[in-house]
Amino acid sequence: MSTETTAATPPNPAPIFDMLQAHQRTAALRAAIDLGVFEAVGNGPGDAASIGRHCAASERGIAILCDFLTINGILAKTDERYTHTPTSAMFLDPRSPACLASMAQFLGNEAILEPFRHLAEIVRSGHTSLPGDGTVEPENPVWVQFAETMAPMAATAAGPMARVLLEGRTGPMRVLDIAAGHGLFGIAFAQQNPEAKITALDWAPVLEVAKRNAKKAGVEGHIAMLPGSAFEVEYGGPYDMVLLTNFLHHFDPPTSVGLLKKVHGALAPGGRVAVLDFVPNDDRVSPPVAAAFAMTMLATTASGNVYTLSEYTAMLKEAGFAGATGHALLTSPQTVVIGQA
Amino acid sequence: MSTETTAATPPNPAPIFDMLQAHQRTAALRAAIDLGVFEAVGNGPGDAASIGRHCAASERGIAILCDFLTINGILAKTDERYTHTPTSAMFLDPRSPACLASMAQFLGNEAILEPFRHLAEIVRSGHTSLPGDGTVEPENPVWVQFAETMAPMAATAAGPMARVLLEGRTGPMRVLDIAAGHGLFGIAFAQQNPEAKITALDWAPVLEVAKRNAKKAGVEGHIAMLPGSAFEVEYGGPYDMVLLTNFLHHFDPPTSVGLLKKVHGALAPGGRVAVLDFVPNDDRVSPPVAAAFAMTMLATTASGNVYTLSEYTAMLKEAGFAGATGHALLTSPQTVVIGQA
Repeated sequence: MSTETTAATPPNPAPIFDMLQAHQRTAALRAAIDLGVFEAVGNGPGDAASIGRHCAASERGIAILCDFLTINGILAKTDERYTHTPTSAMFLDPRSPACLASMAQFLGNEAILEPFRHLAEIVRSGHTSLPGDGTVEPENPVWVQFAETMAPMAATAAGPMARVLLEGRTGPMRVLDIAAGHGLFGIAFAQQNPEAKITALDWAPVLEVAKRNAKKAGVEGHIAMLPGSAFEVEYGGPYDMVLLTNFLHHFDPPTSVGLLKKVHGALAPGGRVAVLDFVPNDDRVSPPVAAAFAMTMLATTASGNVYTLSEYTAMLKEAGFAGATGHALLTSPQTVVIGQA
Repeated sequence: MSTETTAATPPNPAPIFDMLQAHQRTAALRAAIDLGVFEAVGNGPGDAASIGRHCAASERGIAILCDFLTINGILAKTDERYTHTPTSAMFLDPRSPACLASMAQFLGNEAILEPFRHLAEIVRSGHTSLPGDGTVEPENPVWVQFAETMAPMAATAAGPMARVLLEGRTGPMRVLDIAAGHGLFGIAFAQQNPEAKITALDWAPVLEVAKRNAKKAGVEGHIAMLPGSAFEVEYGGPYDMVLLTNFLHHFDPPTSVGLLKKVHGALAPGGRVAVLDFVPNDDRVSPPVAAAFAMTMLATTASGNVYTLSEYTAMLKEAGFAGATGHALLTSPQTVVIGQA
């Protein structure tokens, strides 16, 4: 949003009411997912009574919930019947392969929500109210759930990122996938280049999820598992490519520079690191999804943040990389920053 | 939102991410109000360091919070400085007489927020998870806070409603203000017609707030206090006008019909009742603010809801009223429904 646009707008209390009540939207979508509303709507006929029977829920509750989802553009309503919008059919009906509903489990996890109940205190102190380093604490079980539930979001970026990284490149290559999580980024790489050999690094319980996903994708023979912390384990190598996806936003720049130095040391000559992350413009308030992610980092980590392309470029240079380029992904609000060793 | 518009939109995961994270917006605005950010921004110069000093908060936390408020259109940012938008200057700076910030206390009250953490369970059962009748339980202390903090919202409707009701009418009249709360609706009536004699009915501790507001407005001599429950206390009368503001949405239609019968019995011949409330269209999904208020009633009451003009007309007829008309208020998302005795 440009400052000019904002300043020209007359005073309007509506955005204030909207923000004060916005928590209801999160609660409503989570409740609808938990109750199976989107499966029921897909089944038809879509009146509140039949949705209520499917969900073992009251007709009054279902009618108010489905009206609320319609007001928010998630469902459609004609006469007294609720139907899928294209969005809910593709992303919320559990029968759709692109269903995102599992994300509600991670984003609704108490460890992720709880800090937002003490946000003033967190703004005062400047770091999460969660113990220690927050979600980045070693072996935090939240990352097993992340790997299990957030794959649909990664799926929108994994294929396109592999295409960017493999453009004009074929043949054998060694790839280290740091903080692999669900493993989807390395898996997409292996699918697009069957001669690539991937090493997936994460805490051991998280790698179990990556292993299952690799098997499902039929590329388990191309992916080796390296359990441990990205800061402590020996990387091996040398690698032609290191993936650092959704990882550096958890840390302050000096910590990231230290890690990038370690990555640099594990790269073969001519090797590259690919940082996938939320990268705002220099104003730090646009584009909205990338810029707003800083709030999640404030609430859940000790010193994480979003970083601009200039900031990533500076960190990469300080860590010994020759240069950096940014590549927007059309299908995702995230950016790939490629550092050349 | 029309069904046609929704159905024509291509699938888009953005509204789903947005809803799953919407709770962060509520937390951010509350934190900014609690920390005094809007006073600090009004003081200038508006860089994160000086706002941080004013709020006794970290620069990191303030920068991320103020960026987030800018992304959401609440603040403006130029270079590294945050300034008021017309909206935040008028409705969030505590020095503005129209400041709405106190509403965050009521809307952020645990008794109001807590049910939203169990919304699936509430949809199943069809009524609030709060004890008994929820917020409508007798003497629930939440209504003292409501009266103290929600007056700025009522202020946008009180004057215009009195103008609608007094159009073409002058001279002595007796007015009963049921569930008077902060008293602003009766006060506006007394200000516009100094010959009106108002009786404000509410639980005794709530009436203390109305008394203070009447004194502040210089109309305390025009307002008598009638402590008790609207369902139990003798109304006295007869009255020329009964105000039922933001009250009937807490109940199911039979309960409201019972109360409207009691109101009808207290009206002089030719008297009128004025129901101020959120009144959705017959589709129950528009306009958005009025329709979405049903969710608050689902979460916090046993059987409340929003009602359409046809539904209010039917209730008024069943209670003995001759007819009903709806009057939209330009300055408020609420509607005045007038019933003729």
